Amino acid sequence: MKIVVDGYGGDNAPYEIVKGAVQAVNQDKDLEVIITGNEEALKHIIAEFYSGARITIVDAPEVITCEEVPTIAIRRKKNSSLVKALTILKEKDVDGFVSAGSTGAVLAGGIFTLGRLNGVKRPALAPVLPTMKGGNVMLIDCGANIECKVEHLVQFAIMGICYMQAVYAIANPKVGLLSNGAENEKGSDLIRTTNSSLRAMDINFAGNVEARDIVSGDYDVIVADGFNGNIALKSAEGTANMVFAALKEEIGKSFKAKIGALLMKSSFKALKKRLDYTEYGGAAFLGVLKPLIKTHGSTKAKSIAASILQAKKMAESGITAKLDKQLKKYFGNE
Amino acid sequence: MKIVVDGYGGDNAPYEIVKGAVQAVNQDKDLEVIITGNEEALKHIIAEFYSGARITIVDAPEVITCEEVPTIAIRRKKNSSLVKALTILKEKDVDGFVSAGSTGAVLAGGIFTLGRLNGVKRPALAPVLPTMKGGNVMLIDCGANIECKVEHLVQFAIMGICYMQAVYAIANPKVGLLSNGAENEKGSDLIRTTNSSLRAMDINFAGNVEARDIVSGDYDVIVADGFNGNIALKSAEGTANMVFAALKEEIGKSFKAKIGALLMKSSFKALKKRLDYTEYGGAAFLGVLKPLIKTHGSTKAKSIAASILQAKKMAESGITAKLDKQLKKYFGNE
Repeated sequence: MKIVVDGYGGDNAPYEIVKGAVQAVNQDKDLEVIITGNEEALKHIIAEFYSGARITIVDAPEVITCEEVPTIAIRRKKNSSLVKALTILKEKDVDGFVSAGSTGAVLAGGIFTLGRLNGVKRPALAPVLPTMKGGNVMLIDCGANIECKVEHLVQFAIMGICYMQAVYAIANPKVGLLSNGAENEKGSDLIRTTNSSLRAMDINFAGNVEARDIVSGDYDVIVADGFNGNIALKSAEGTANMVFAALKEEIGKSFKAKIGALLMKSSFKALKKRLDYTEYGGAAFLGVLKPLIKTHGSTKAKSIAASILQAKKMAESGITAKLDKQLKKYFGNE
Repeated sequence: MKIVVDGYGGDNAPYEIVKGAVQAVNQDKDLEVIITGNEEALKHIIAEFYSGARITIVDAPEVITCEEVPTIAIRRKKNSSLVKALTILKEKDVDGFVSAGSTGAVLAGGIFTLGRLNGVKRPALAPVLPTMKGGNVMLIDCGANIECKVEHLVQFAIMGICYMQAVYAIANPKVGLLSNGAENEKGSDLIRTTNSSLRAMDINFAGNVEARDIVSGDYDVIVADGFNGNIALKSAEGTANMVFAALKEEIGKSFKAKIGALLMKSSFKALKKRLDYTEYGGAAFLGVLKPLIKTHGSTKAKSIAASILQAKKMAESGITAKLDKQLKKYFGNE
């Protein structure tokens, strides 16, 4: 399997990207990685860590930044690490893609450079989060589609189900619809109509879900428009950060607590690892022609490696063919 | 000051409500509390804790439950603890109101039984949350108004500013608009137009805020429609619950960590207290004719007491007159 990685995307590019790619090929002997970006610089970094043949470079001297307008940047900067990587993904025998770059540019590139699956109205960005019961839940969409219609949310449900079946081997994923209350009549017009549509479908739909219960472990897929999914995801991030910061402050106030914290060091470490979903990879952009992972901009080597292995796992699961089949089944590829 | 309390609202009514009222009058010698509900039952409970004259009862034999349709329930059950309390608030020399009952019924009652301030299009439910810097931030609206227009969000901003000035003595509250990105052009049409409107106003508007930064401590007021605000608030709640549950699990895995946790007991307690915003009271329903506090349905005595004192503080701050003045200034009480 071959995964192409945008070598100049993210705050810690290219150093951490290369390091992550090396970790990934060391972890998986069946993996090859192509990194795009400034050839000389990349060569130099790779030489530090790796001498094998399973990492190759494709020169791409331009860089797309977070400040650029995504649709313009991907049209104009054909020699950027991002567009080059997407072009390789589309045209060559390559199985998946990873970038930690500008979210807008990655998504726009995914749609315009790579292309959508037949019948997909709106590809969706979907991270998989840890739950209270130790399992996982997919939140789809978390920011790609700010204004959605019922038909978009319904497709998100089908794509989420398909992903959790193919990649997580969950036979009959349970779907919840993000709303301001669990009752069917709660929510905006959009949510109420989507609720009716999902209830009428042959899927395991459990109705509306309050944001409090996203991570309860009672659901495998949570459907939301990109605006609300983004708010739910980032509110969770902000809260987790606040809890850890406040805990640190409280510990600092007492000598006894400091000793206690030392004894708990490995528990805290395990806790952080368990809650930090970026440890496990990135968000899949579902509905495009090949596996595409967007990881956090501040991501480091470990999470780049996890994202590369996640893209490989997606490819191995045959997710794209399965998505195509499910979309045909439910929407007849209109 | 006199505060009227819905004696039969919430999961722990009437026992915890009465207990909370007793705690409040014991904490504040200038406070009188009226409790509505089944007279005999309330008398019996009060006798357990209190023999003074500053708690009185008004008989209200009916109860409105969370299962009832709010607008119908408040019209039909004139003798319910909720409607009776709101009627007393409106007609008598009473300064504020507290209920832990059905959110829908409390809000509908606030609008139809008590009534709106002149010029208020949509009263809004607004909790005050703890921040990372140890301060507070008001999230307005968190669930009263599911579908909003620009003019509603703009009024929420003015009401939030007014509250943080009057009750928290913040001279020039900094306002953020909840969106999926900090840039002005981010968000739905509603958010982008609201952003322009707020920028054009004579207020301390800091632009869009991602949900991650609600509790950063950089803002005093976060404006959102009720759907988005609800998702942000409940996602935060769910995350905090998950962090504590996961921490408990991790501690359970190691003897060393258990000893550590014992040493940290008071730090954990302080942390929980600091993060549990219901400890400090409830959410103000801003834009109605008198101070109205809705507390969490699962609330206990301590938080009922805090809510009663919060209602008193609101009344003392002259918030209603100040709101009226500000609404006139900005909207001319159209």
